[in-house]
Amino acid sequence: MSEFNFEDHPHRRLNILTGEWVLVSPHRTKRPWQGKVEKLELEKKPSYDPKCYLCPGNERAGGQINPEYSDTFVFNNDFAALLEDTPEGGYNKKNLLVAKSEKGLAKVIVFSPDHSLTLPLMEVSDIRKVVDLWVEEYLALAEKDFINYVQIFENKGEIMGCSNPHPHGQIWAQSSIPDIPAKKTANMNAYYEEHGKSILEDYLEIELKKRERIIFENEHFVALVPFWAVWPYEAMIVSKRHVKHIGHLSLEERDSYAEIIKKLTIAYDNLFETSFPYSAGIHQAPTDGNENDGWHMHMTFMPPLLRSATVKKFMVGYEMLANPQRDITAEFAAKKLRDLPEKHFSI
Amino acid sequence: MSEFNFEDHPHRRLNILTGEWVLVSPHRTKRPWQGKVEKLELEKKPSYDPKCYLCPGNERAGGQINPEYSDTFVFNNDFAALLEDTPEGGYNKKNLLVAKSEKGLAKVIVFSPDHSLTLPLMEVSDIRKVVDLWVEEYLALAEKDFINYVQIFENKGEIMGCSNPHPHGQIWAQSSIPDIPAKKTANMNAYYEEHGKSILEDYLEIELKKRERIIFENEHFVALVPFWAVWPYEAMIVSKRHVKHIGHLSLEERDSYAEIIKKLTIAYDNLFETSFPYSAGIHQAPTDGNENDGWHMHMTFMPPLLRSATVKKFMVGYEMLANPQRDITAEFAAKKLRDLPEKHFSI
Ligand SMILES: O=P(O)(O)O[C@H]1O[C@H](CO)[C@@H](O)[C@H](O)[C@H]1O
Ligand SMILES: O=P(O)(O)O[C@H]1O[C@H](CO)[C@@H](O)[C@H](O)[C@H]1O
Repeated sequence: MSEFNFEDHPHRRLNILTGEWVLVSPHRTKRPWQGKVEKLELEKKPSYDPKCYLCPGNERAGGQINPEYSDTFVFNNDFAALLEDTPEGGYNKKNLLVAKSEKGLAKVIVFSPDHSLTLPLMEVSDIRKVVDLWVEEYLALAEKDFINYVQIFENKGEIMGCSNPHPHGQIWAQSSIPDIPAKKTANMNAYYEEHGKSILEDYLEIELKKRERIIFENEHFVALVPFWAVWPYEAMIVSKRHVKHIGHLSLEERDSYAEIIKKLTIAYDNLFETSFPYSAGIHQAPTDGNENDGWHMHMTFMPPLLRSATVKKFMVGYEMLANPQRDITAEFAAKKLRDLPEKHFSI
Repeated sequence: MSEFNFEDHPHRRLNILTGEWVLVSPHRTKRPWQGKVEKLELEKKPSYDPKCYLCPGNERAGGQINPEYSDTFVFNNDFAALLEDTPEGGYNKKNLLVAKSEKGLAKVIVFSPDHSLTLPLMEVSDIRKVVDLWVEEYLALAEKDFINYVQIFENKGEIMGCSNPHPHGQIWAQSSIPDIPAKKTANMNAYYEEHGKSILEDYLEIELKKRERIIFENEHFVALVPFWAVWPYEAMIVSKRHVKHIGHLSLEERDSYAEIIKKLTIAYDNLFETSFPYSAGIHQAPTDGNENDGWHMHMTFMPPLLRSATVKKFMVGYEMLANPQRDITAEFAAKKLRDLPEKHFSI
């Protein structure tokens, strides 16, 4: 029997931030695909769509009229999953049926007035305005007593449940700390207490030496495929400096952040020459009033495509019942992304 | 401000088996849908398809020829995610990059020689043969030293990543206990130690009194929408008796189990008059040699459809980054499923 290695043998890898495992089956990439093939959405979008509820001057589902905004634009989600005026309350039947009311709010962050754009097609200076708005919203929400956690995210592409192609993201903010950030909070703070350093700082140090999973770096940020990546081309953008939340980024770091977002999303589009779908979001310190000294902000991109613009990875069956599984290794994915041309394929 | 109630107010519910939460936003069902619409697959399938690699007598991808089987049929997956001959080994870089080799195996369980069938269209006596095969395989795998956990599951429908419509499921068995069953093991055993009873026995007692979330029951099994359901029409089939794994079911209980599987899957098909897609799987005691006295077997069905045969719930963005969210309540879903006609819509 040969010696164990990552390229040939099934193995599990540990996500040090959540404590969960992923099953890696690198030998399985030879499997033929006879399943679902997604339809391509490649029509060129107009810069303004009279039927789009996010374009400047148009009417929204709730009846409000959008202003003639010229860069970013934010409003309260007309169909928010979380509401401010939720009454306090709960339910507990012998600790077996347990529920708690949840206060919160949901916002929509429009990235640009131009309906035809996406982050990789925007200027770095315009992405910087999106970063500025994220910072502003995070800090304002942190001030509210009933908000202890702020989730900033983007769903891009129909296949990711995005119902409007106008470039936009969302913020859901709430009283409780949801499960995934709660696990990260516990693990990051515990590591900090033991080592006096952020876990991601130490992790980055190793990755920057090995360079097997690094996609790019610039002055203040690194984009890499984490050792424990679940989605085929999952990537993480991490600040080189130990920064708890985006409110602590310097103006220069914000530029650097905008730049690396553009670089990564161009690589994604170039990979299969398509507008690459993903969910992405920022994980950062809860706004619960605790020190959270171990927190180190990072942004995760979770794109579903696996083999081509039309064949995705399905997280079903085993994944829903046991734990996630992937075929290509993190090292293979990072190399693929790193080696792509720097210019967007459509330009 | 009105008093908190489940029908109007956003709230979180606790999954007592995994310790995780789901955000419920019942007021959000009014949201319009402009997003992705799935294509319907409603063509009638033939009973035999010469190109299907699961039909009797046909050739598989690996070159093997299927026997002329007359009820169920099992074989080792030609593209297994887990392999028996994986060498031992691992990798650990300062507890930050952690990996372990993983031994295991994967099998395909064919439910019927008839290519056109699905579980709801099979006779109860034929579903019983599938149950018998699950039991046989579980017990045989439990005997193997390197197998400590056995995951039996079915992915049904293209939308659930199923690449062949021939009625079949899978078994992935391995050395480690994956994350979700590991959490259930800890919680179920802890409850048993404290109360001397199975947590699902006590939970069922409450549900059978309330009857708000019960879909059906028969002599030995209950089908219900769990209080903490994540997927819109998620359901759980639980044995009334505290049974650790399917190997302990009596022959009468196996009949009862087959019958309730048929009833539930007919209700699913009738809900949107379509062949209802889902991932389903059995959670039961690990085969790790421990007593696992708290374990109580149950089968979970996770169907993605939300509003119709073509509009599904997307678990993206907030769900991937924070925790799952649902719009319709478990009570609403249970009532819908309970009130459907008992006969399959296509007959
Ligand atoms: O084994 P299959 O049917 O080829 O593959 C399907 O089920 C597996 C187990 O649930 C998933 O990991 C795959 O993503 C899915 O496409
Ligand atoms: O809020 P939207 O874009 O209407 O909805 C989308 O994003 C939400 C948050 O990630 C998900 O819960 C929904 O399932 C998805 O369709």
